Amino acid sequence: MNGRSVTAFAPASVANVGLGFDFMGFALSGAGDRVTVSLNGSTGDTTIIMSGEYGSLIPVEPAKNTASVAAIAFLKAKGYEGKGLKIELEKNLPLGSGMGSSASSSAAALFALNELLGNPSTTGELIPFAMEGERIACGTAHADNVAPSLLGGFVIIRSYDPLDIVRIKCPDELYCAVIHPHIQVRTADARRILKREIPLGDVTKQCANVAVFITGILREDYDLIGRSMDDLLAEPKRIQLIPGFDNAKKAAIGTGAIGCGISGSGPSIFALCRGEALSFKVAEAMKGSLMDSGLESDIFISSLNAQGAYLI
Amino acid sequence: MNGRSVTAFAPASVANVGLGFDFMGFALSGAGDRVTVSLNGSTGDTTIIMSGEYGSLIPVEPAKNTASVAAIAFLKAKGYEGKGLKIELEKNLPLGSGMGSSASSSAAALFALNELLGNPSTTGELIPFAMEGERIACGTAHADNVAPSLLGGFVIIRSYDPLDIVRIKCPDELYCAVIHPHIQVRTADARRILKREIPLGDVTKQCANVAVFITGILREDYDLIGRSMDDLLAEPKRIQLIPGFDNAKKAAIGTGAIGCGISGSGPSIFALCRGEALSFKVAEAMKGSLMDSGLESDIFISSLNAQGAYLI
Repeated sequence: MNGRSVTAFAPASVANVGLGFDFMGFALSGAGDRVTVSLNGSTGDTTIIMSGEYGSLIPVEPAKNTASVAAIAFLKAKGYEGKGLKIELEKNLPLGSGMGSSASSSAAALFALNELLGNPSTTGELIPFAMEGERIACGTAHADNVAPSLLGGFVIIRSYDPLDIVRIKCPDELYCAVIHPHIQVRTADARRILKREIPLGDVTKQCANVAVFITGILREDYDLIGRSMDDLLAEPKRIQLIPGFDNAKKAAIGTGAIGCGISGSGPSIFALCRGEALSFKVAEAMKGSLMDSGLESDIFISSLNAQGAYLI
Repeated sequence: MNGRSVTAFAPASVANVGLGFDFMGFALSGAGDRVTVSLNGSTGDTTIIMSGEYGSLIPVEPAKNTASVAAIAFLKAKGYEGKGLKIELEKNLPLGSGMGSSASSSAAALFALNELLGNPSTTGELIPFAMEGERIACGTAHADNVAPSLLGGFVIIRSYDPLDIVRIKCPDELYCAVIHPHIQVRTADARRILKREIPLGDVTKQCANVAVFITGILREDYDLIGRSMDDLLAEPKRIQLIPGFDNAKKAAIGTGAIGCGISGSGPSIFALCRGEALSFKVAEAMKGSLMDSGLESDIFISSLNAQGAYLI
């Protein structure tokens, strides 16, 4: 395999999905990072070459870069440590956007590296290594971005010990409009402001909404999906970090979105919509609303059944 | 309608279903209370006549009996207050059993009364009146017993304000074994011992398990149902009220049950099983285990898609 290189793409993702704090997420299509990997010797240090719109903002020290941290953990587990790993990372996703930017880099690196080594692991088995990248990026080895970024589609992280991930099929007509306001929210900050203890009554309400949300997804019942999208854990605290969130949400619902919430730890905002055409209208309405608050933003549109990582 | 009488049956139910504290429940077939109602005059007081195995344990004062409290609330709403209501309640379900005994009485009374009045309400519209019976019985107007007892099947109470109840279809092969140990647990006691605040990490785990449980139910995936049946809210506290619960649960799982938990606020214990034959074996194993602790118990077996209230 020396000298050969493999390139993979892994998409951005929406973690939490509003009411699924820390255990739900889905992949987005289109936006994502691209990584080329090669092993250039029987021994040797890791080299990282950055490119792409946000490449200059990412550390090139192997111990601080999510792609290399994940890749090195994988190489070590497979007995290929110190083989002159070279990572070329085209960083297309903005940092601190709430769109799974760090996860996209590590997922792409692992997907490419697995192929380079002759696929010793299934895609699902790459998730724990990608989680090591998340630990570097935000202090918590969470899977709600890396799992959808690798596997695609909509995932539920049922348990971390043992790791138990369930992938569910979403209605084909279900689309997501994401807007990314041009501000940055550090995941660590977004976690620190959460309440550590939740009143029992709120827990019951949250669980009941989760039960109905999943029922809506699996029965393709858009009304149930909409009625249940009410997060009592993260959104009430995190909106303070996203100026204009309330108005953007009102604009989304007013334009016909089924539901709307914070993507990951923000500042990106997602809205679920029935049909691709409506999702563009909803995204424009949210963008216009943020513009009224003086905030520029970018738009991303995707099915909820989007593909995960793939080779290029 | 004077002089005419109508009789209805409403089944017992399993509330909470382990991990669905205060928002999930399903009806049981076979066991339940039977109520005959009549209106005997243009004016007149309410009369209650009790019968059945547990009839002597129920108050006959109209303000303290769940069936009459629910019925009077309904009559008042429909403009038939003080018309000489007569309730004959055959009380077949033990009190404080965790099998929705009080709900069964009020559901049967309302179902019969609605028929007597020419069905001014849908069955779903009877739920708020049945909840008034629960308020008398245990201090909280909850719906996780009355809704399945009236509607049948498996229900999710998404919200109380507005009341929003979602009924879901369960796998046809899914059966429930319930054993009722001959001890009594007061719902008020079972509620008082719960933690009022839940750590955020536990909330995430509970929500994730709920999401996977519902996925398992709707996809008919028994493995997912089993993996997800792990309650962090009620069971860890309430097992202290049910001697022998741990061993009964081990016996159930060891005999092949998919999952096992406390029915309602206990002391009844339920186990989900694939197939009716296995559910009998599981029930016998649980009964034997409790017997080892010196505790007698009764067995109830039911599909999860059991019928709700019906006329006789």
